[in-house]
Amino acid sequence: MFLYSTLLLSRGTHVHSKPIFTLIAFRRRVSYPFSIHATPPPPPPMDAAVPESSLRSILTEKQASVDGQADVVRKLKAEAAPQSDIDAAVESLKALKIELSDASKRLQAVASNHGGGASAREAFRQSVVNTLERRLFYIPSFKIYRGVAGLYDYGPPGCAVKSNVLAFWRQHFVLEENMLEVDCPCVTPEVVLKASGHVDKFTDLMVKDEKTGTCYRADHLLKDFCKEKLEKDPTLPAEKVAELKHVLAVLDDLSADELGAKLKEYAIAAPDTKNALSDPYPFNLMFQTSIGPSGLIPGYMRPETAQGIFVNFKDLYYYNGNRLPFAAAQIGQAFRNEISPRQGLLRVREFTLAEIEHFVDPDDKSHAKFGNVADLEFLMFPRELQLSGESAKPMVLGEAVRKGTVNNETLGYFIGRVYLFLSHLGIDKERLRFRQHLPNEMAHYAADCWDAEIECSYGWIECVGIADRSAYDLRAHTDKSGVPLVAHEKYPEPREVEKLVITPSKKDLGLAFKGNQKMVVEALEAMSSAEGLEMKAALESNGEAEFKVCTLGKSVVIKKNMVTINMEKKKEHQRVFTPSVIEPSFGIGRIIYCLFEHSFYTRPSKSEDEQLNVFSFPPLVAPVKCTVFPLIKSQQFDEVAKVIATSLRSNGISHIIDITGTSIGKRYARTDEIGVPFAVTVDSTSTVTIRERDSKEQIRVSIDEVASVVKEVMDGQSTWADIMWRFPTHSVTHADE
Amino acid sequence: MFLYSTLLLSRGTHVHSKPIFTLIAFRRRVSYPFSIHATPPPPPPMDAAVPESSLRSILTEKQASVDGQADVVRKLKAEAAPQSDIDAAVESLKALKIELSDASKRLQAVASNHGGGASAREAFRQSVVNTLERRLFYIPSFKIYRGVAGLYDYGPPGCAVKSNVLAFWRQHFVLEENMLEVDCPCVTPEVVLKASGHVDKFTDLMVKDEKTGTCYRADHLLKDFCKEKLEKDPTLPAEKVAELKHVLAVLDDLSADELGAKLKEYAIAAPDTKNALSDPYPFNLMFQTSIGPSGLIPGYMRPETAQGIFVNFKDLYYYNGNRLPFAAAQIGQAFRNEISPRQGLLRVREFTLAEIEHFVDPDDKSHAKFGNVADLEFLMFPRELQLSGESAKPMVLGEAVRKGTVNNETLGYFIGRVYLFLSHLGIDKERLRFRQHLPNEMAHYAADCWDAEIECSYGWIECVGIADRSAYDLRAHTDKSGVPLVAHEKYPEPREVEKLVITPSKKDLGLAFKGNQKMVVEALEAMSSAEGLEMKAALESNGEAEFKVCTLGKSVVIKKNMVTINMEKKKEHQRVFTPSVIEPSFGIGRIIYCLFEHSFYTRPSKSEDEQLNVFSFPPLVAPVKCTVFPLIKSQQFDEVAKVIATSLRSNGISHIIDITGTSIGKRYARTDEIGVPFAVTVDSTSTVTIRERDSKEQIRVSIDEVASVVKEVMDGQSTWADIMWRFPTHSVTHADE
Repeated sequence: MFLYSTLLLSRGTHVHSKPIFTLIAFRRRVSYPFSIHATPPPPPPMDAAVPESSLRSILTEKQASVDGQADVVRKLKAEAAPQSDIDAAVESLKALKIELSDASKRLQAVASNHGGGASAREAFRQSVVNTLERRLFYIPSFKIYRGVAGLYDYGPPGCAVKSNVLAFWRQHFVLEENMLEVDCPCVTPEVVLKASGHVDKFTDLMVKDEKTGTCYRADHLLKDFCKEKLEKDPTLPAEKVAELKHVLAVLDDLSADELGAKLKEYAIAAPDTKNALSDPYPFNLMFQTSIGPSGLIPGYMRPETAQGIFVNFKDLYYYNGNRLPFAAAQIGQAFRNEISPRQGLLRVREFTLAEIEHFVDPDDKSHAKFGNVADLEFLMFPRELQLSGESAKPMVLGEAVRKGTVNNETLGYFIGRVYLFLSHLGIDKERLRFRQHLPNEMAHYAADCWDAEIECSYGWIECVGIADRSAYDLRAHTDKSGVPLVAHEKYPEPREVEKLVITPSKKDLGLAFKGNQKMVVEALEAMSSAEGLEMKAALESNGEAEFKVCTLGKSVVIKKNMVTINMEKKKEHQRVFTPSVIEPSFGIGRIIYCLFEHSFYTRPSKSEDEQLNVFSFPPLVAPVKCTVFPLIKSQQFDEVAKVIATSLRSNGISHIIDITGTSIGKRYARTDEIGVPFAVTVDSTSTVTIRERDSKEQIRVSIDEVASVVKEVMDGQSTWADIMWRFPTHSVTHADE
Repeated sequence: MFLYSTLLLSRGTHVHSKPIFTLIAFRRRVSYPFSIHATPPPPPPMDAAVPESSLRSILTEKQASVDGQADVVRKLKAEAAPQSDIDAAVESLKALKIELSDASKRLQAVASNHGGGASAREAFRQSVVNTLERRLFYIPSFKIYRGVAGLYDYGPPGCAVKSNVLAFWRQHFVLEENMLEVDCPCVTPEVVLKASGHVDKFTDLMVKDEKTGTCYRADHLLKDFCKEKLEKDPTLPAEKVAELKHVLAVLDDLSADELGAKLKEYAIAAPDTKNALSDPYPFNLMFQTSIGPSGLIPGYMRPETAQGIFVNFKDLYYYNGNRLPFAAAQIGQAFRNEISPRQGLLRVREFTLAEIEHFVDPDDKSHAKFGNVADLEFLMFPRELQLSGESAKPMVLGEAVRKGTVNNETLGYFIGRVYLFLSHLGIDKERLRFRQHLPNEMAHYAADCWDAEIECSYGWIECVGIADRSAYDLRAHTDKSGVPLVAHEKYPEPREVEKLVITPSKKDLGLAFKGNQKMVVEALEAMSSAEGLEMKAALESNGEAEFKVCTLGKSVVIKKNMVTINMEKKKEHQRVFTPSVIEPSFGIGRIIYCLFEHSFYTRPSKSEDEQLNVFSFPPLVAPVKCTVFPLIKSQQFDEVAKVIATSLRSNGISHIIDITGTSIGKRYARTDEIGVPFAVTVDSTSTVTIRERDSKEQIRVSIDEVASVVKEVMDGQSTWADIMWRFPTHSVTHADE
């Protein structure tokens, strides 16, 4: 019996859902004109009936077609073939990628056979979320005004966890790699986001209740419909099951028309009112505003921090002594006006991103420090495993790069560093995997992309995207701004190269085009080599050539006397090129939420009449490092607590003193629940006990040693086990837990 | 000869201009209906002709009137006098405050006689700003697209300085006081900012070029006109001089009508086109947007972070164990859509605020740790000194609180902590003063306000506002949200109190008002004691009373049988009250800019043919703590440099290795210019030299001691002088500086 659970959906089809991070997001947000799918393809046969082995051979076939077509596109580009040819080839490539993805998802659905546990996972999530909200790790924002969906505040412990995570991020990435950190505004003028593509393409498909105007995400409605049918209607015929499963599998790739057709076919109405729905149309997810008092400069709240780095490339390259490679980094708020935010902290309208843009010579993507991470072994989920319906497997990073599974050393280096970062924070290594993007998930310009996905009660969640975006972003801003964002490499010796030299004859052009002469000259000079050679050929065979001048908005006829085009030998002293960028992009809120789930457990109280909540944060992450409890209400003990607090403070150790008369067991439970790793109990005026949260073991130390012991473990110089060895353990006489 | 320079304007009239921080801002942004000034007051007599002594006695007189009228207002409120009486008294108070401010400014203008130096200051600023922009401390944002006024990026060294300042802020305030730090979104729904007053009052007065639509700040145009006249027209008659100076003095207090009248009177036209200008009208400074896809939820980018704390008061109070006092804190971006940003980093459209809201019992504003700061002595500029035209004076903080100059201990405590914070960062103590707000600068609800002002080339700049805002903010949100944001104090013994008890007779009200009964009942129960007593009196004398029911939008007639109103004795177990809030609010960008100016100096190069720039940042603030220079190009030295870099990294010390073959002097100069305090020169494989930036002194240490020596000074455990004592000094043989 096949149970279509949330988890299965997640496991099977990688519902990292809408990616939170990069421009690659466009690939799933934009509705490409998939002409071959003008009517949805017929549903595939019921997969259960097809043996895995034959699905696998279909896949191998499809993969080969995609690879072949990708080669064709690359070749056409390299040969500077006419744009129309390239476009046609890219269209075919897209169509093939869709087929490949479809096949892969079908196989995965067959292969993943563990459906149950969804309700257990929801119960677990509920108890984590209850604890988090009750202890103010986070709070729905503006609660006293009934809040706003998708906006959350971090309360005191959540805010402390967040700032610990960010401090460690700075230490682990910025300091370790001498990255150039920048800090750019959130308010961004339209031109920047026009160049990046966000103004035109950063959209989700939306439908409106035709009577009330309430908005819904079109794909959510279709998904909910299919899931509910599959889960609640046991009489569904086999073909229908297959059809609905197919819809779920290709959901992310449907165009507006296809989505609209499906909604109509299934007669899906507005969930709340059952009113009819509008056709789906793209809704831009950026918060729009206007800069300055005139209302004439449109602006947006940035949807990612990366653009602030790209537009500064020239200055940063100079700052780095005009040398590659180097990395720039930025931590900051990003904004996405989600149509209908779901999933708590995972899908929000404002969130903190930490992004790295590592600029590198496209011809040399080796990394000097790759050796430091080459021996790491962790769960990787390359394309082939996904396509063959297998699960992620432990792989040695060095091997993965050597075999070409990971495209290059620099990308591999960052995968390794991200792995170290997340596992240091306390993310469970067994529930962390690096998943390679399938061909249909990647933009055509991307060389390779891997997501760090963390498993939580919502399934496998994309938390870090690590993409080799080639030269796309710098080129986009070069084109739009006219400022060349390029790097230079001086040759040891000047080189002789053949180069197309275009020399317009200004006099003849002036006679022919009068006032427009300047624009024609500029357009001629700006021709690419391919265009120049094409014109040269036309002039030689026909004596004239039609030529489109963009700045004039029309074509003109160029005669032979108006321009000389020749291949000439020239000496070049340097190579000028657009660097590639490798971009690790961290969704800090998502990482923190997964960390909350991975750190949470319950254990019985001493009397065994209730379950107590614990967050087992490592000291690095814990919101408060240490609590101080005078065992009983006594002025002497309170004084000792103050002395200890002062020494903790001067060592930079965050702490809480709890002098309420509550039982010591209750006080322990209270701070276990916010994940404080150490509790100091003052039960004498000379020595005190330190209790470790998870083991509940206690040692006895003198008052003036407290701060240094806690600091040692906090800074990672010692483990609790080391400490246990050095100090007398304390048998639990006063702890009533 | 009287020179009206920028500096004098700053010194004389405290052009902290538009305050960047708090709601108090409204007082200067909003155009109050100053009925008494419907036509501008006649210019005061030429001040030069009036001796200082008589100006002073005028002032004393005006101050007395203000104090007297303030008492009247307070008394009326305490007696719960009719609102119309209170309003009238407040209006008179405002008028008196204007007169007082005017008189004070006249006196100050006479008293401050140092006018020169403006051009030297501008030259100094230019060389600081040039260095800052060239070394990428900051960069105009989106430069390749020609930028947007009022938006700046922090480049690598600026970003590092900023994150050091924020880390120290967290250490100095949040950790030291166990504050509850929160992190709320920037996107804020309208209702919150309606309650806070920003939607209605957060405005500047704007005029438009009637033909081109270009916008200007009305007060800027008037100010520029007056200043130019005064500076460039030596033939101006004495009366005119006095008139223009008066306009400058009262500029901040002019209403829209008054400003408009002045612009007309002086025939001020649009600066760029000389076209006619529109009348001034208020322009709201918040960036507006809309939340969610429907376009129906208006929202704004927050203009300050404080509101996020206020709306969470109830949860935070609970988190703190329902105990007062406690403080909450927030660091984050704030946004103000300035009409015409000026002054570089000082007046920007997006900036980082760090705000503290310290909640305290209004009946007990003592502070347990005040003793820690009571002995501090620094420049204070209380109201009386400003009004008598004197300068700021060194005062002992404890004295200032004891004498009542500073309203209460808690306010004083924060003034002291802010002083310590700023001076630790490297702000020059001689150019830092705490200026008390004049009565006309404060909102009527504020108990006392002090600004930490730092002197830079733009004059004295408000960088931190420290305000006792009484219960205003919590009350505003209580009223709007209906959620009581209050604190409780349990009495040791229950107390007997007389209380007005209002008992509506639901039956009679139902007969009279039918469907509206519920709203009338609620309105009756919500009456204040004063209103209740008034109604009781009316019912007893007339048998009925007119009663306004807001929820119905009209008045109804209440008869004697419909309600019983009696004073009754009741036992009360606790006191319920709205806490006061004391708010230190830090403009991080302004502090950093002033720090840049205070740290900057130049010194001749060794050959004395050029001036070298140095930023003398303390190690705490320095963007990079240490540079490592192999003296000559050599593999051996490069290896040593790498070993040192690794040990610096593992000690968390940010550093740069410079292996360019450039002369060592040039390399020193290059890092002096970004304020790196220590330079390690590798000139052997066993020991190296460490050079201190400002003294240029060098010591010789072994390779494995480098990191610990730098760390000691960086953490403040030792000074450079201590270090010099311990290690052999190195006579400068290799340094070519």
